[in-house]
Amino acid sequence: MLKLFVGNKNYSSWSMRPWVLLKQAGIAFDEELVRFDSFDADSNFKKTLSGLTPTAKVPVLVDGELAIWDTLAIAEYVAECYPEKNLWPADRAARARARSICAEMHSGFTGLRGNCPMNIEAALPEVGALVWRDKPAVRSDVQRLVQMWTALLEEHGGPMLFGDFGIADAYFAPICMRFNTYALPLPQVAADYVQRVTALPGVAAWIADARAEKDFLDFEEPYRIKR
Amino acid sequence: MLKLFVGNKNYSSWSMRPWVLLKQAGIAFDEELVRFDSFDADSNFKKTLSGLTPTAKVPVLVDGELAIWDTLAIAEYVAECYPEKNLWPADRAARARARSICAEMHSGFTGLRGNCPMNIEAALPEVGALVWRDKPAVRSDVQRLVQMWTALLEEHGGPMLFGDFGIADAYFAPICMRFNTYALPLPQVAADYVQRVTALPGVAAWIADARAEKDFLDFEEPYRIKR
Repeated sequence: MLKLFVGNKNYSSWSMRPWVLLKQAGIAFDEELVRFDSFDADSNFKKTLSGLTPTAKVPVLVDGELAIWDTLAIAEYVAECYPEKNLWPADRAARARARSICAEMHSGFTGLRGNCPMNIEAALPEVGALVWRDKPAVRSDVQRLVQMWTALLEEHGGPMLFGDFGIADAYFAPICMRFNTYALPLPQVAADYVQRVTALPGVAAWIADARAEKDFLDFEEPYRIKR
Repeated sequence: MLKLFVGNKNYSSWSMRPWVLLKQAGIAFDEELVRFDSFDADSNFKKTLSGLTPTAKVPVLVDGELAIWDTLAIAEYVAECYPEKNLWPADRAARARARSICAEMHSGFTGLRGNCPMNIEAALPEVGALVWRDKPAVRSDVQRLVQMWTALLEEHGGPMLFGDFGIADAYFAPICMRFNTYALPLPQVAADYVQRVTALPGVAAWIADARAEKDFLDFEEPYRIKR
């Protein structure tokens, strides 16, 4: 049985990607939630993970003796192990495009990620309005997302970016959570996509777990002093 | 024929990865070098690339109608198109590990990347010694690299990280260039790997092109006022 190590579901956007991918694709897995803490060398977080991978970060996918770290490597591994799930598009050109946008997400969108950290349980529309007014990097990241999503939804006909659900949608699910929390303005076609992703059973299950968490972590909460 | 768009060879570490991959693997391709400039919307750089991809960055691989951006997506595409080249390890576990370290490189090692930007033509050992003394993030990035390379070279027997040359080596080639430029201290086994990568014909060809360039770009040169 595959085992996935994840961080706090309310905060850990990188953990969310492979968890939603496996869940929504109907692939069975065990999970272990390693709560965020100080991340010091002797913290529970680091002690739990340092025996598994050299980076000691979440997420980690363990398959028998093999530990795979980083969401992109996990996604490729799962796609290889379950070819019948079509987690990448079957068409080679579409697959190359899906990988391009996932890699773009992996190293980019730092304006949006930095100013609007994932915080599923929170509702922060006023913060979102200020960020939108004051942060050009957020506006340009959102502009790129709208362009990307609109083009792909039109080209493949929806409901997901490449037709059926796949890795690309799991990759952008944490971004959708940010639109929910911060209520950043979106054209209808993009807002509808956010709503459809939010309603996917695999995403809804993650959201329910995130809302049930009780942790309030200062370093993840630049905009609140309590829940 | 594949066509690869790259930036300045002396500076563009992301361009170096797919170029070296194709060259060293013996895959024919045309190249177009798009010189770094202001990157303004009306710059030659942006005008050349904005028609190709939404991000308008290098590298871009063009195959007929298809433009693929970001090094990881390019590497996966090339690996799929040329399975006989074994650009990823044939063993599934080794392949997962290779993808893990490439993804780790893709979003990490920011201490080393930020403090020691790639500058192939330059010899900056004194800068390297100061960086080494003053920047813990550089030391910890190098420690991780040494651990990674040592373990893989021992496990697979060298000469490259997973035995024969592959995507992982292309991915770490720009890091090897930094060790050459900044003369950061390395244990022998890691220093030998850097030397072997530097001597690969595909890498040597890139280095020769980089040395022949005449551009001096201030924003790429935090440590010199001229060549």
